[in-house]
Amino acid sequence: MRRRRFLALPFAAPLAGQSSVKALTFDVFGTVVDWRSSIIREGQALGKKKGIHADWAKFADQWRAGYGPAMNRVRKGELPWTKIDDLHRMTLNRLLDEFRITALTETEKDHFNRAWHRLDPWPDAVDGLRRLRRKYTIATLSNGNVSLLADMAKYAGLPWDVILSAELARRYKPDREVYLMAAELLSLSPAEVMMVAAHKSDLDAARNCGLKTAFVTRPLEFGPDGKPDLAADPKFDVAAKDFLDLAARLGA
Amino acid sequence: MRRRRFLALPFAAPLAGQSSVKALTFDVFGTVVDWRSSIIREGQALGKKKGIHADWAKFADQWRAGYGPAMNRVRKGELPWTKIDDLHRMTLNRLLDEFRITALTETEKDHFNRAWHRLDPWPDAVDGLRRLRRKYTIATLSNGNVSLLADMAKYAGLPWDVILSAELARRYKPDREVYLMAAELLSLSPAEVMMVAAHKSDLDAARNCGLKTAFVTRPLEFGPDGKPDLAADPKFDVAAKDFLDLAARLGA
Repeated sequence: MRRRRFLALPFAAPLAGQSSVKALTFDVFGTVVDWRSSIIREGQALGKKKGIHADWAKFADQWRAGYGPAMNRVRKGELPWTKIDDLHRMTLNRLLDEFRITALTETEKDHFNRAWHRLDPWPDAVDGLRRLRRKYTIATLSNGNVSLLADMAKYAGLPWDVILSAELARRYKPDREVYLMAAELLSLSPAEVMMVAAHKSDLDAARNCGLKTAFVTRPLEFGPDGKPDLAADPKFDVAAKDFLDLAARLGA
Repeated sequence: MRRRRFLALPFAAPLAGQSSVKALTFDVFGTVVDWRSSIIREGQALGKKKGIHADWAKFADQWRAGYGPAMNRVRKGELPWTKIDDLHRMTLNRLLDEFRITALTETEKDHFNRAWHRLDPWPDAVDGLRRLRRKYTIATLSNGNVSLLADMAKYAGLPWDVILSAELARRYKPDREVYLMAAELLSLSPAEVMMVAAHKSDLDAARNCGLKTAFVTRPLEFGPDGKPDLAADPKFDVAAKDFLDLAARLGA
């Protein structure tokens, strides 16, 4: 593997400190899977079936935009612990009103809500995870609930060793408890765990808990007009353009 | 699959109620993996390396015999929450004294303690799980800690969709909270979950929480002179001789 790494990436020398890493924990929405294209695809399929005309890209963006504020209501104690499935459904109900979509049965609404269980991986994700899994324990560390992540893994062929979720701590990232719980359940110290994410806020929080950090760029997460995090910050331990690049940089 | 099932098992008609089952949760030690042979093998290898002569079968049996009482100390509140890895280590320390084994370094003791992460599956387990996984979400539901179960899955090639552990409830089976937590994390009702185990006490507890139950025989769990549960109890929903038989009976 060493030879291949240096052929592909002559400047990807391992960084100090990463040799202690035994497990990688991954943010999922946006980092592993392309939620936006997947939700648009599901919306279009539903629209075709039901004769609904809507701007599904706008719908997808607004559905996702409801995610942070809904979690923050839980984080602030305005809502009791609520799974992402249920937060997604609350936002979906509001958007169906706002988009004046009235033709869906309860079964169809439930199926559409579970579109978040059927998100497609970025093209490099499965191959990259397979490589990384040879060297590390690989785990999700997502705000998605356990059953959502399990369904998605099966749908998308994601070869996780362990499914870890904010649900297990009944707190949402970026609350500290989530990152510390992950290390505890992996029976590792925080410094033996590396958080992988396309979002700097997630990595900042992980880093503040003592985890190592790997930043991966996902330029199309928010679509062609989106404003994703793209510039690597030197405080993160590794920066990679995708999961194959990450595997190469970690010698996997 | 239907044709093959009836060829192999003419009397294996599906039982009433099992069609609602969406996930199977598995006891692990004894049900999925052959702890006794694996611990004997690890003991023999260690003995050979270090020149230690011991009755490793007796050692394995006594190590396992310490498991229930150690968990019961946690269940009764005599010990705070303690992972199985640490309970195994407490028992190991006592047994090393009793067997007058004094030649092990701390690293060797730790490696031997992690023999419980390297248990071999019963010969039918991996193929049976692969078949069952096509139709059901398959999850561990073991008193083993999450990292132990993750290491074992990687070592033994066990294709779990989700690793669930008593550790997530900070309670040990047969406490009710463990079974109910599993259904909650799978986003299913208890009746949509089927507990699979070779031990009637585990199934009795699962059944009392509303889960479906599948009894699988493991005649050699306790060795050639052991006294395992072997007679199917009609109150369990399914009885199977191994995981391939279970797959056939569940139409997977």
